[in-house]
Amino acid sequence: MRLKRTHQIGEITPKLIGEELSVSGWILRRRDHGGVIFLDLRDRTGLLQVVFEEGIDPEVHALADSLRIEYVITVKGVLRRRPPGMENPKIPTGEVELVAKDLEILNTSHTPPFPMDEDLSEVSEAIRLKYRYLEMRALNGQEPFIFRHKVNQALREFLNARGFLELETPYLTKSTPEGARDYLVPSRLYPGKFYALPQSPQLFKQIFMVAGFERYYQIVRCFRDEDLRADRQPEFTQLDLEMSFVTEEDVMQLVEELISHLFEKTMGISLSVPFPRLSYQYAISTYGTDRPDLRFGLELKDVSEIAKASQFQVFRSALEKGGFVKGIKVPAHFTRKEIEELTSFAQELGAKGLAWIKYTKRGTTFEEKWSSPIVKFFDPTLLNKMELLFELEEEKATLLFVADTPSLTHSILGELRNHLAKKLSLIPEREFKFTWVVDFPLFEYSEEEGRPVSVHHPFTHPKEEDLELLEKDPLKVRSKAYDIVLNGIEIGGGSIRIHRRDLQQRIFKILGISEEEAEEKFGFLLQALDFGAPPHGGLAFGLDRLIMLMLGKKSIREVIPFPKTQRGQCLLTGAPSEVRIEQILELHLLPGWEKKKEGS
Amino acid sequence: MRLKRTHQIGEITPKLIGEELSVSGWILRRRDHGGVIFLDLRDRTGLLQVVFEEGIDPEVHALADSLRIEYVITVKGVLRRRPPGMENPKIPTGEVELVAKDLEILNTSHTPPFPMDEDLSEVSEAIRLKYRYLEMRALNGQEPFIFRHKVNQALREFLNARGFLELETPYLTKSTPEGARDYLVPSRLYPGKFYALPQSPQLFKQIFMVAGFERYYQIVRCFRDEDLRADRQPEFTQLDLEMSFVTEEDVMQLVEELISHLFEKTMGISLSVPFPRLSYQYAISTYGTDRPDLRFGLELKDVSEIAKASQFQVFRSALEKGGFVKGIKVPAHFTRKEIEELTSFAQELGAKGLAWIKYTKRGTTFEEKWSSPIVKFFDPTLLNKMELLFELEEEKATLLFVADTPSLTHSILGELRNHLAKKLSLIPEREFKFTWVVDFPLFEYSEEEGRPVSVHHPFTHPKEEDLELLEKDPLKVRSKAYDIVLNGIEIGGGSIRIHRRDLQQRIFKILGISEEEAEEKFGFLLQALDFGAPPHGGLAFGLDRLIMLMLGKKSIREVIPFPKTQRGQCLLTGAPSEVRIEQILELHLLPGWEKKKEGS
Repeated sequence: MRLKRTHQIGEITPKLIGEELSVSGWILRRRDHGGVIFLDLRDRTGLLQVVFEEGIDPEVHALADSLRIEYVITVKGVLRRRPPGMENPKIPTGEVELVAKDLEILNTSHTPPFPMDEDLSEVSEAIRLKYRYLEMRALNGQEPFIFRHKVNQALREFLNARGFLELETPYLTKSTPEGARDYLVPSRLYPGKFYALPQSPQLFKQIFMVAGFERYYQIVRCFRDEDLRADRQPEFTQLDLEMSFVTEEDVMQLVEELISHLFEKTMGISLSVPFPRLSYQYAISTYGTDRPDLRFGLELKDVSEIAKASQFQVFRSALEKGGFVKGIKVPAHFTRKEIEELTSFAQELGAKGLAWIKYTKRGTTFEEKWSSPIVKFFDPTLLNKMELLFELEEEKATLLFVADTPSLTHSILGELRNHLAKKLSLIPEREFKFTWVVDFPLFEYSEEEGRPVSVHHPFTHPKEEDLELLEKDPLKVRSKAYDIVLNGIEIGGGSIRIHRRDLQQRIFKILGISEEEAEEKFGFLLQALDFGAPPHGGLAFGLDRLIMLMLGKKSIREVIPFPKTQRGQCLLTGAPSEVRIEQILELHLLPGWEKKKEGS
Repeated sequence: MRLKRTHQIGEITPKLIGEELSVSGWILRRRDHGGVIFLDLRDRTGLLQVVFEEGIDPEVHALADSLRIEYVITVKGVLRRRPPGMENPKIPTGEVELVAKDLEILNTSHTPPFPMDEDLSEVSEAIRLKYRYLEMRALNGQEPFIFRHKVNQALREFLNARGFLELETPYLTKSTPEGARDYLVPSRLYPGKFYALPQSPQLFKQIFMVAGFERYYQIVRCFRDEDLRADRQPEFTQLDLEMSFVTEEDVMQLVEELISHLFEKTMGISLSVPFPRLSYQYAISTYGTDRPDLRFGLELKDVSEIAKASQFQVFRSALEKGGFVKGIKVPAHFTRKEIEELTSFAQELGAKGLAWIKYTKRGTTFEEKWSSPIVKFFDPTLLNKMELLFELEEEKATLLFVADTPSLTHSILGELRNHLAKKLSLIPEREFKFTWVVDFPLFEYSEEEGRPVSVHHPFTHPKEEDLELLEKDPLKVRSKAYDIVLNGIEIGGGSIRIHRRDLQQRIFKILGISEEEAEEKFGFLLQALDFGAPPHGGLAFGLDRLIMLMLGKKSIREVIPFPKTQRGQCLLTGAPSEVRIEQILELHLLPGWEKKKEGS
C-alpha cells in the first residue's frame, strides 16, 4: 500500500475543507462528464464523492479511467465544497467532494452478479447467499450485522453492570436425548462413542448455580438437528442466563429491565414495563394460543351459554360432546367469496365449518341488523345477549364462530385471529408488544408415549401449592415456567428449576424415567443437587429471532452472517461436504453408502 | 423461599450495624461454643460470621443445630459490631457479625469429598474435575472464572471503542484438511456428507473483510482433533480479529494497545510498549527458538570462529560438516552429577554430547580460572576471546557448548536455556515479557511431503521485496506473519493475508495444490478475491493460554470451567458416550464395532 489512509469517510465533515486527505474504499458508482470522472467511493462508515479533473497528472487520470465498480482504491486529494446546486442532502458528506491528486488501485473486481446500490429483495436468496460477501458489502447490506453488534453490546453492558458473569460451557458434550435430535460428533479416541453439540447449556448453567456463581450469562451457539420447517437453523444463538436465590417474579423483572435497556440503547424506544403477565389458561381462552399477539384485539368470546339456548343444532351438539362454542368479532363485512375463503382457511386447520353473523348497527329492522343463514336459530333475546357479550358498537361487524373440542376451537380461532388481523391491516407498523405467559401446566399427556411429558423440560419446578397433586393428578400441576412473547412470536422462555434431588426424582418417576436411566443421562446433575444446590432459575432468548423482529425482517437468515438454507446447506462453502475416506476410517465410521458399496 | 435476601455479603459494611438484614449462602464452617452456634456463611461476594445465640427462638436454635457445612440457607438477623478482640482483619466483614433471628434451610448437602476452605492443589485432578461444581464453590475456586469474565469485558471494551464489530461465524462448516485434524459432524439429510467444526474462523473472517466490514472480532470456540499431548484441549477459545487496509505494523500496534489495556484493567499492571520485534532469524540464533522467553538472559553465542581455531576435534568436525558451535554462559558452577544430568538432558534432545568449561574469575593461575576436560584444546588467546565473547564478569560461571547441525544446535541450546533458567531460579516471579517474532519464512521444506509447506497457512502474504523469489527460491521468501510470545509461550499469531487471486494461485502452485483441489477446498475464498477484496490482516490469540499465564496457573484446565482430560473426556458428564443405535442409523453411520458385530 503506497498511499496511507488518513480518514474513514464517516469522519469527513465540511470542517476539513481545504485539507489534504486519503480515503480507502470501494467504488459504488462511476460517472463521466467530459474528461471529468466522478466516483461514489464508500467504506463501512459512509459515502464520498471523488472527482478526477482534467487538469491532474495524466498518469493518475489514465489510471482513474481504468476504474470500474467495486474496485478497491485509495485516493489522496483535497477536500472542497461542492459547487452550488451540486449538493446531495441525502448523505452526510453531501456538501463536499474530494478532488483527487493521487490514486492507488488496491484490487480490481469482476462485475458483481447483482446491482450494489439497489434494494436486493428481488434477487433470489440462493444467489445472495452464494455471494453473501457482496450482498453484505452492497448499500445497507451491513446494517443488520452492525445492529446485531450493538445488541450484543447493550445486553452485555446491562448484565455486566448487574453482576452477571459471562462463563463458558463446552460445545463437545454429552448426548441427552430429550427434546430435539442431537448433532453428534464421533470420537476418534473412543471408537463407537460420540460427543453431542449442545441443544442448550441448560445442565451446565444449573451446575454453575450449584458452584455458587449466582448470576451467569452467555451469548452462546446452540444446535438442533430438526427437520427444518419454517424459519429454523441447525445452529442458532441464544442469550442464556441463570440466577440463584430468585423467584419467577425476580427473573421476569430483571428480563424486563434488560429488554427495556436493549430497546432504549439500540433503537431509542422506551418500552413500558412491567409487561402483561397472562396465565396460560387466560392466553389460550382469550387468544386461542399461548403466543398471543397483543398488537390488536379480536379476542375470543365464549358464546357457549348463548349457543346452548339457541336452536342451532351444530352448536348444541358440539356442546353436548363437551366442546365449546367461541367467536370473534371482526370490524368489517365480508363478501360471500371472502366468507368462503375464511371457511376454507378454518377447515384446513381442522374446523368442520365456520358460522358467521353479519351485524349492521344502523339496521332499523331485525333483518337489516342481523344477517346470516343461522340467525333464524337465535331468538332476539339471545341476539341482544350476543350484542352485549361482543360489545357491538361498530357500524359494521362480522361475528365468526367455531364449535368444536376446546383445543380445536382455540387453535382454529387463534390462527383465524392472526390471519384476519393481517388481512384487515389491523396490525400497527413498528410496534413492539411484549407479554409474559405464566402458570403453564407442568406436564401434558402424550398419546405417543402413553404418559405425561414435560411441557418445558424435566428440570422445571412445579408451583409449591400444586406439589401435593404431583402423583395424584399430574396434569393439573402448574409449573414455575414463563415464556416471553413479542408480537405473537415466542422469543424466550425459562423457569425456576428444581434444586432438590427428592423432588427431581419424583418428577422423573412421573415421566417414566427409571432411576438407572436418570442416573445414566443426568447423573452428574442429580449428584450436584446432593451437594448444596441453591434455589435457582433463568431464561434463554432466541437472539436471532429477537433481532429479526427488532429490524422487521422476514427471516432469521437476514440477521445471521452465514446462514444455512432450509435444507441445512451453506451455499457459500458448500457444507456439508464429502470428506476423505481416511478421515472417516479414523473415526471408526463407515457411512451407509460406503457399506452398501462393499456389499454390492 | 420464605425469607427474602436483602443483601449480598459483599455489600455489608459497618455502616449497616444495627439494621435488620437477610443474607443467603453456603456454610463454609461451623463452630459451637456452649449453646452458641457460629457459622461462616459465604456467597459469591464474601464471607460473613453468623451467630445463633442461646436466647433466640428455640425452634430457630434447633434448626440451626441441624446445620452442616455446605447447607444452603437464608438467615435474617441484626448486624452488630463484634466484641473487642474477636475481629478478623483478614476479611472485609471482619468487624461485624450477624445475630440471627430467623433461619430458612434452602437445601442440605452431603459432606463434600474434599475440604472447602483449603488449598485443593493436593487433591487429585480427577476428583476435582468430577466434582467441578464443588471445586469452583470452594474458597477462591471462582476466582479464575471471575477473572476470565473481566478479561472478556476488557477485550470487548477496547475493541468496541476502536470500531471493531463482533460478528458471528458458523460452527457447522466445511472440512478443509489443512493443519490439524477436523472434528466431523455427520449430516442426516445428506448421507455420507459431513460438516466440520472450525479449527478457526480464518476463511470467514477474510470473507468479512471482502464484505467491507473492515474491523471484525469474535471471542470464539475452535476445535482440533489432535493427539492431546501437553496442555491442549479438543475445544479452546480464541480472540480472533481482522482489519482491512492495514500493514503488519498497524496490526501489531493495535494488539499492543489491546494487551496494555487488558493488563491495566484486569491486573493494574502497565506494560511498556512497543514490545520488542525480533526477526525469526535473530530469535533462533539468540535464543534457539522462535518462542523466546525474555525474562532472563542466557543468550546463545556463536563460538564457531573460536572453535575453528581450536584443536578440539568434536567442534572442528561439526563445523566441517556445515554445522555450528554455540554456547551459553550460566552464572553458576555445577557438580559433576549436575553436569551429568545436563548432559543427559541434552542427549535426550538429540545432542551427541555437552561440552563445558568452568570459569572462576578470581583464579590466579590458568588452571584455577579455566577448568574443563576440553580446555587443553584451546590456547590462551582463544580463551581470552571466549572471555570477551561471553562478557565473563561473574565470579563463577559455566560455559556449555553444543556442536551440531544448525537446527539441532539451536533446539538443544534453546531447551537447555529454559531448563537452566528454571533450575537456577533465574526467572522473576509475576513478570510479563512480551515479544513479537517477525520475518518468518513463508515456507519450510517438508521431508514427508517432498515439497515446501506453509509455515503459517497458505493465505499468508509474502513480503513484497521477496515476491520475485517465489518460484525461484521459495524457501528464501519471508512472510508478513507475526507471532506474539509471552514468557516463552506463543499466545497468538497472525499475518497480512493475500488479497489478490493471482498471488494466491501462485502460492497454491508452489504448495502443490492443483487448481481443481484449490477450487474444491477454497473455491469460495478464491471467488471472493475476484470481487474487490481489500488488503487485510489480523491475528488470533489463544485466550485460555493467555489467561493461564496472567494468573500464573500451570494448566489451561484451571481456567476452563468444564475442561476435558488429556484423553478428551469430560469427567463431569462422561462425554463422549454411547448413543442409541437409532441415532447412529439416522446419520447413515455404522461405527466400526457395530460392523464387526454384524460380521461375526
